[in-house]
Amino acid sequence: MNIKDIGGEFALIKKITQQITDKSIITPIGDDCAVLQYNKDEYLLFTTDMLLEDIHFNFQWFTVEQIGKKAIEVNVSDILAKGGKPKYCVISLGLPENISVELVEELYKGIYKTAEKYNCSIVGGDTNKSEKLIINIAMLGTVKKEKLCLRSGAKTGDLLCLSGYIGSSAAALAILKNKKEQELAAELSRIKNYFTEPTAEIRGEEIAEFATAMIDISDGLASEVHHLCSMSCVGAIIYADKIPIFKEVIDIASSLGNNPLDYALYGGEDFALLFTIPKESLDNLNNIFVIGEIVDKEEEIIIIKDGKKERLENKGYDHFE
Amino acid sequence: MNIKDIGGEFALIKKITQQITDKSIITPIGDDCAVLQYNKDEYLLFTTDMLLEDIHFNFQWFTVEQIGKKAIEVNVSDILAKGGKPKYCVISLGLPENISVELVEELYKGIYKTAEKYNCSIVGGDTNKSEKLIINIAMLGTVKKEKLCLRSGAKTGDLLCLSGYIGSSAAALAILKNKKEQELAAELSRIKNYFTEPTAEIRGEEIAEFATAMIDISDGLASEVHHLCSMSCVGAIIYADKIPIFKEVIDIASSLGNNPLDYALYGGEDFALLFTIPKESLDNLNNIFVIGEIVDKEEEIIIIKDGKKERLENKGYDHFE
Repeated sequence: MNIKDIGGEFALIKKITQQITDKSIITPIGDDCAVLQYNKDEYLLFTTDMLLEDIHFNFQWFTVEQIGKKAIEVNVSDILAKGGKPKYCVISLGLPENISVELVEELYKGIYKTAEKYNCSIVGGDTNKSEKLIINIAMLGTVKKEKLCLRSGAKTGDLLCLSGYIGSSAAALAILKNKKEQELAAELSRIKNYFTEPTAEIRGEEIAEFATAMIDISDGLASEVHHLCSMSCVGAIIYADKIPIFKEVIDIASSLGNNPLDYALYGGEDFALLFTIPKESLDNLNNIFVIGEIVDKEEEIIIIKDGKKERLENKGYDHFE
Repeated sequence: MNIKDIGGEFALIKKITQQITDKSIITPIGDDCAVLQYNKDEYLLFTTDMLLEDIHFNFQWFTVEQIGKKAIEVNVSDILAKGGKPKYCVISLGLPENISVELVEELYKGIYKTAEKYNCSIVGGDTNKSEKLIINIAMLGTVKKEKLCLRSGAKTGDLLCLSGYIGSSAAALAILKNKKEQELAAELSRIKNYFTEPTAEIRGEEIAEFATAMIDISDGLASEVHHLCSMSCVGAIIYADKIPIFKEVIDIASSLGNNPLDYALYGGEDFALLFTIPKESLDNLNNIFVIGEIVDKEEEIIIIKDGKKERLENKGYDHFE
């Protein structure tokens, strides 16, 4: 039986996850980070992300420095999504035999610059020979106990919010995949950075002060809403016309004959934060987008498009689809 | 310029390592684990190791369960080498698209069984599609402050010791690489496990009580002695005839026209512990092998073979050689 047959990556993770009995572990597998006992005031956050050549990046669309940056940002995003701060990381590299020292230095320039931006110290690593470039980062962060924001705290009546525009990364990828760089040069130039230099949402800690649940959007809005609702045992209603999508992204979708909503719902690598807040907390946060609300689980996850209700499919960027 | 030209993996690591200023970091990059502030009595240990198909294992010589076991053992070995105990880990996988769910379950069986043996909880991970199988584990452990044993504490006059026999893994690999499985079947059957199911030295914490410096042998004795001496600013004299090598390994080397000492010095993946202890502590430890002694740095690292002194080359298993 292959992974696709049992329902893809998330079904696989569910199948291989075992019961955890250690009481110093605050959350089991299934959130953005593991949450571990640390000290009187803080928890320790532990996460890992692997970037693979030709899966998460290539040398055609990314500079080597951008690859290094991205490797740090994707891990930082997991830490910020829990209301935490990055602190330490270790880096495992698989380097092609003939890669030049200059390219490795470029890669590290991206890694160090980005780690420094977040005050995250690189404390170790492992270097190996591989056919293609592989970068795995494991990161530790800390979170004040009262700020910890899991996927599991959303309550009926909470507002469902996004910290920023989504779908941009998927739109840039669509242009590149369709080889329309020439025709859509102006649009691409305005959004390409969302794909090649994604940045984590630095307001994670600020948002966590008010949010009841939070997750970062790495595999598209649809699958992240499903993760959040499933962990919180609630349902959600999303208003399609409230989802923040740049005009350029809409233009690109139109030029390519795509639906821009598909980029937002099923594209990935946006790294905005999806979170829920009680209605009365809304005034405490600026520059956020309310895209729906949390309802009882019975109602499942509904998206309202052009006045019509639809069940939102639990589909996202799955490596095994 | 490629990595080989600047002197391989360790020269590269030196080149890309930056100064660390965070005071909660007890050791800089360059030990088996990063050592971090944790609580009043303990430090936190943080390490990572990547295993790659056709570099560290293949499906011809290893069962999938053995690959999972090895991925945990290599990380545990780093923690034990500092006198610590494994506690948590996160696992990143790169899985070939058509790998069967049964094989992934076998892999996880090896991972879970081994993690459980060491009371190490798997608290998270990341799953990706890749061309070949990739397993990266990042592990956290704890060590009692008074037990912490770095690479850097060896003193002139200390004895240089090994916790077990070495060279067995390299000998098994030599048979397999030379396709002599038939001719050397009996010898191979007795030592194959050292290659396919290496285990970390569980006496790490016990040894750390007396050791002044410690390192695990993952890239061969020669390069590990160099690491330990360089971090401790000392030299060493090694007596070749004191290095514990199994009779089977000597027989295999003889059959293949190799020098068994080369397996021990320059082979890898043994996971015995190399450590230094003051002479007066020797009686506190059983079943260890004294292979030499620590001398002033000026004398460098010398090996005495058949009564003759030789400088021991700083050469080990380097992925870029």
